[in-house]
Amino acid sequence: MMSKWLCDKYIANKVFLPNYKRRLCFEIGGCVSKKIGKQTIFFEKKPKICGFAGVAGKKESEGPIGKFFDKTFQDTTLGEKTWEKSEGMLQKNAVEIALEKAKISANEVDIVFAGDLLDQCISSTFGLKDKRIPFLGQFGACSTMAQTLILSSLVVDSGAANTCLAVTSSHFCSAERQYRFPLEYGGQRTPTAQWTVTGSGAAVVSKDGGDLFVNSALIGKIEDLGVRDSSNMGAAMAPAAAETIKTFFEDTKTEPTDYDLILTGDLGETGSVLLVKLLKKYGVDISTDPSAGISHSSGAFGKHNDCGLMIYDRKKQDVHAGGSGCGCSASVLCSVIFQKMKKKEINNVVFVATGALMSPTSFQQGETIPGIAHLVNIKI
Amino acid sequence: MMSKWLCDKYIANKVFLPNYKRRLCFEIGGCVSKKIGKQTIFFEKKPKICGFAGVAGKKESEGPIGKFFDKTFQDTTLGEKTWEKSEGMLQKNAVEIALEKAKISANEVDIVFAGDLLDQCISSTFGLKDKRIPFLGQFGACSTMAQTLILSSLVVDSGAANTCLAVTSSHFCSAERQYRFPLEYGGQRTPTAQWTVTGSGAAVVSKDGGDLFVNSALIGKIEDLGVRDSSNMGAAMAPAAAETIKTFFEDTKTEPTDYDLILTGDLGETGSVLLVKLLKKYGVDISTDPSAGISHSSGAFGKHNDCGLMIYDRKKQDVHAGGSGCGCSASVLCSVIFQKMKKKEINNVVFVATGALMSPTSFQQGETIPGIAHLVNIKI
Repeated sequence: MMSKWLCDKYIANKVFLPNYKRRLCFEIGGCVSKKIGKQTIFFEKKPKICGFAGVAGKKESEGPIGKFFDKTFQDTTLGEKTWEKSEGMLQKNAVEIALEKAKISANEVDIVFAGDLLDQCISSTFGLKDKRIPFLGQFGACSTMAQTLILSSLVVDSGAANTCLAVTSSHFCSAERQYRFPLEYGGQRTPTAQWTVTGSGAAVVSKDGGDLFVNSALIGKIEDLGVRDSSNMGAAMAPAAAETIKTFFEDTKTEPTDYDLILTGDLGETGSVLLVKLLKKYGVDISTDPSAGISHSSGAFGKHNDCGLMIYDRKKQDVHAGGSGCGCSASVLCSVIFQKMKKKEINNVVFVATGALMSPTSFQQGETIPGIAHLVNIKI
Repeated sequence: MMSKWLCDKYIANKVFLPNYKRRLCFEIGGCVSKKIGKQTIFFEKKPKICGFAGVAGKKESEGPIGKFFDKTFQDTTLGEKTWEKSEGMLQKNAVEIALEKAKISANEVDIVFAGDLLDQCISSTFGLKDKRIPFLGQFGACSTMAQTLILSSLVVDSGAANTCLAVTSSHFCSAERQYRFPLEYGGQRTPTAQWTVTGSGAAVVSKDGGDLFVNSALIGKIEDLGVRDSSNMGAAMAPAAAETIKTFFEDTKTEPTDYDLILTGDLGETGSVLLVKLLKKYGVDISTDPSAGISHSSGAFGKHNDCGLMIYDRKKQDVHAGGSGCGCSASVLCSVIFQKMKKKEINNVVFVATGALMSPTSFQQGETIPGIAHLVNIKI
């Protein structure tokens, strides 16, 4: 009660407080979140991830982490008449399970940050509109899970909201139609191509609730090294991931060995190999320590793993360079990773979701594929 | 210095502070931004709008507020080879002028919140990628100016950033191609149709700098009353605007007469008439007081005006129900409105940008057009 009274007085700019208290208010007022170094944001009040869920489709349920998903759908239409609405249903399911686990109802959520790969983020709109939660649409391509987590954490940390929702999705069939060809076309895929994940991840971020929390974050800059091959997104996104990871280590004066896992969004095989090489050029070695929290199929990257490599068995499942799509990193983070963190099998994760900021129109116009990577440091 | 020392100690969770000060820290810690009532966010530290710019095309330069734009382009290609890149150049120009007015360089900006109407927000990506500012893509359709302003204010208020940029744009030609038909088709427009504005608006939000500030905000919920006519966006968006405005007045215990201007984004004629009617049903009368800061052509709405009605002369310019597009409310707010506020001709503005969250795909699939409206209260 004291706290509420003090806040009210402070906010109303009334001068009821003793002088030393008022002075202190202004001195401390700016310290809720803080910028460290060039780009890193440190969350003072440690926003909690008090509920999370990862849902996925049939192919993903058959992959190495299939058993960790909260729900999988053998019929990937989810009973809807369009693929776009099927994808919306993935988000709806992920959100409902995450809220249930957090033991809160939708009307207790102050803001939902949601986005997807589709034109005008249509799956988020149609998937979540009936939830009646204040809505801010996000577009970060496959980096959307990190973007929504960062904004949720910022708003909760600031005191403007008690609870936010971070959610994103992708669906193989809606993405194929939009970015490449209708499925019926049966086009050949190149070895560097990735397979869009049918899945969604949702996280409830709140000022209270459990021991899993967002410690810090870094919002990435757009990196464009001129890659134009839309079947090689890994190469387009790796430079952004390298830049983001390097800056984070510089800002926080930490190094890869300080973390249990450095988890990139969906660089796949091609992008992961490039990332390790690029970081070595910067003097950052993410492959020195073989004791990664979870090792992917090739086991070659030490502290590093990639959601696009974890979600499918590339030897048995025909996915070429690995998984991709907003739903890839979202469903992996919000299932196996958070579950293993809750069990304290891994305690300190650097999650770096990467996005390729292109559109079918820009691709047809011969433009490059700019990449971006946002980072979230999650701890328990 | 005292402040910095105190912050550092506080953040490092060290126990150097006297007990009463530490207790106060935790009591006050959550008060930087604050939720009021159901949905309103109150910004404690009053983030300042220290630079702003509105740029526009030829048709807009010939309208009633043409002289207020910082820059207008008679050649709406802006020398680019695609309309998408022309739109990107609008954003680039708006950003550069806004930064110049704020007397800061791009590398002093911590985060840019940018979005547009195009698939995958491509004009924002290509328009701003060379600025090398940490980038978070936003999709709120025509509500994007309010969305980017709200997020910029939240982050600056939290202390995570000193300076943010809020920017959005639209271009008649890129929007026509994407949402309707290529220009060459020459399709007939219905009387309720609106004309997509070629323009962009940018605002620099900072913890210091001048007397124009963001006081409070409200993030809207998606409202869907089942409108399916994509040539009548005003009707699709009016219910969301009404809901947002009503909730804001309830939360803040204020009424229309407490403000100089209630400025909706781009409802146009059809949507504006509907909004006034809907609000009357809720017992809120925005048409009682004829002393609006700026009156639009019909002069009928008292405290209310609409960016879509202000930007064109509907008697002389063939725009049917008025202007629309992200660039409509952005270029109007960041030119004539902020200029008049700086001159203290108007002092207290409620800006409500509205968006129609549909896509060409959802429209072709026969889906409804959900609307959204975000509100920002700006004062001087």
